Amino acid sequence: MARTTVGVIGGGQLARMMIPPAIELGIDIKVLEEAEGMSAEIAATGVGDYRDLDTVLAFAETVDVVTFDHEHVPPAILRELVARGVAVHPGPDALLYAQDKLQMRAKLTELGLPVPDWAAVEDADQLAAFLADHGGRAVVKTARGGYDGKGVRVVSEPAEADDWFLALAEDGRGGALLVEELVPFRRELAQLVARRPSGEIAAWPVVETIQRDGVCAEVIAPAPGSTGRVAEVAADIARRVADGLGVTGVLAVEMFETDDGRVLINELAMRPHNSGHWSIEGAVTSQFEQHLRAVLDLPLGATEPRADWSVMVNVLGGPAEGTLQDRYPAALAAHPEAKFHGYGKAPRPGRKVGHVTVAGADLDDVVYRARAAAAFFEG
Amino acid sequence: MARTTVGVIGGGQLARMMIPPAIELGIDIKVLEEAEGMSAEIAATGVGDYRDLDTVLAFAETVDVVTFDHEHVPPAILRELVARGVAVHPGPDALLYAQDKLQMRAKLTELGLPVPDWAAVEDADQLAAFLADHGGRAVVKTARGGYDGKGVRVVSEPAEADDWFLALAEDGRGGALLVEELVPFRRELAQLVARRPSGEIAAWPVVETIQRDGVCAEVIAPAPGSTGRVAEVAADIARRVADGLGVTGVLAVEMFETDDGRVLINELAMRPHNSGHWSIEGAVTSQFEQHLRAVLDLPLGATEPRADWSVMVNVLGGPAEGTLQDRYPAALAAHPEAKFHGYGKAPRPGRKVGHVTVAGADLDDVVYRARAAAAFFEG
Repeated sequence: MARTTVGVIGGGQLARMMIPPAIELGIDIKVLEEAEGMSAEIAATGVGDYRDLDTVLAFAETVDVVTFDHEHVPPAILRELVARGVAVHPGPDALLYAQDKLQMRAKLTELGLPVPDWAAVEDADQLAAFLADHGGRAVVKTARGGYDGKGVRVVSEPAEADDWFLALAEDGRGGALLVEELVPFRRELAQLVARRPSGEIAAWPVVETIQRDGVCAEVIAPAPGSTGRVAEVAADIARRVADGLGVTGVLAVEMFETDDGRVLINELAMRPHNSGHWSIEGAVTSQFEQHLRAVLDLPLGATEPRADWSVMVNVLGGPAEGTLQDRYPAALAAHPEAKFHGYGKAPRPGRKVGHVTVAGADLDDVVYRARAAAAFFEG
Repeated sequence: MARTTVGVIGGGQLARMMIPPAIELGIDIKVLEEAEGMSAEIAATGVGDYRDLDTVLAFAETVDVVTFDHEHVPPAILRELVARGVAVHPGPDALLYAQDKLQMRAKLTELGLPVPDWAAVEDADQLAAFLADHGGRAVVKTARGGYDGKGVRVVSEPAEADDWFLALAEDGRGGALLVEELVPFRRELAQLVARRPSGEIAAWPVVETIQRDGVCAEVIAPAPGSTGRVAEVAADIARRVADGLGVTGVLAVEMFETDDGRVLINELAMRPHNSGHWSIEGAVTSQFEQHLRAVLDLPLGATEPRADWSVMVNVLGGPAEGTLQDRYPAALAAHPEAKFHGYGKAPRPGRKVGHVTVAGADLDDVVYRARAAAAFFEG
């Protein structure tokens, strides 16, 4: 019998968006959610703490392969799963690099992949030295726990990271902060690939991502005006990351396209990623279907775009009053061509509660429509 | 608060295929399934008999609008729901015409819509008279309960319908059989539309359906070589049916394109239909998303095709041994461009257990690929 039950740890919108392609393919999907009523509720078969070994083990026994809505499951639990013969994708050896930015930077450097100048700094003096060598400003990041702009700070004085140094000291495990050069970039790109345990890799077209306050706001697929060279370089980098780190499932590589035409790796995510939501309608195989195929070690689907341009705009925060669906009568009437996605989450400032995707042949028109459709859910 | 919970009576694959767009739109969906473990299991909140008023009422109380996976809910139950203020779409007055082919033929005739010559026949003598008037052969249909070729028989002798006349007599309620002329047709078409309670109608392109043994085998969207005239006539007929019968939700009108270039109505279905499965990937708004929008009285989505050609091939029966998913490693590897759909049903001869859709610019190539991909699940 083929493996056909995927277990997802975490009940957020990424787990939610894996459910439609599972239903379509005829794959069973089960979700271990952190609390009742989360975004992926419809497929939830359990509620529990992913930091509790017994909870995770009990869930794993009900599925054929374990995968993730997020990267926060402790490495010790992942290793115990693997030791007990559970198929875990991505596995703990790969996930380590998504969980710890210092390990990630060290590994990418070892692999000869293009990254910004960086250093591990254990105190203000080491940070001061890096600043002095890099024009007096730099980006400081906590190695663990950051996302959507959290745990990232631009500093020009070493003292600006004192609280984080203090937290590291109090943590007792020691460790260091990651400091990186401020890259003068033209724009940000994201390259998504999927890799099967057996090694097959498929790459979508590189996309442009537009961030606001450190959070993804819009994605344009493919990245406009990306010369063949940039697209090739981006895909090549992501393939080398996937192979070099042994990633299974979807890998998102966030990149800077620098003012002088280089492509540097910014962040990694080893799961479906906001920069790939456009692929639900915009590609022959969406990132969510591909993730299921990859973690089940099934052959990967075609990644060709289904339209000249797809533009995705996040709904951040959502309506000040009521729900997303309260705005549907007006929004759907104005934009019959738009695809509306709601995550089943209550509106809250800054929260990702949904997104809108529009596809078409004229980029300016598509961008305009996607923004206009998403705007119905603001205010 | 907007209405956001759709209740589906019946747990088959049509209910199943409503779940992905519900998840995507952020609409809650609940299914009353006939038995445990049915195709739409993941959204099932109850198991029970749709012929039992209390069961259906209890289910209806948990949702904002009731719709259907099939047309078999007894009219008396539907009327009781409406009497108690439940939103039911399509409503009992419309569904009557999908439940009773004699009522349907009479109503379409009254509306001046094009149908084959027909009559209600109560005994062999009346059938003999119809046969004598129509070249000695005709199609006899039971008024109720037929689908996928069941309850349909081509006869050339009145005695060939004796068992059905006997069944009608034993039923005690009396009634008649429907007899229709054998229409010399070039091919079969299907026109799908969706209609909201407020009256808005949206039509997809007319498609060609290829039946084998009375069961839909393949669908080509749009219908090849359909002149503008046929496409317009088909859409106009379906719109008139939807308006004239007060249909809400998706309406499928199966039609004959006759050898002499006319378009005649064959059958009606008031729900998503096999002839619209191509729209999941092939249209901007799929029939399943549109059905949800329509029954919630939300504005309808665009129905434009997303590719020049989409071809859907049913997986009928499925593998002689094992499951559909056992064939995925070979099928997905050979056809990365194909979209595979499994209904979570055990293989059984003749049973609809899944389908495959391929889209592209070259019709011959698309047909070939769709058939080849579906063939992996045979034998």
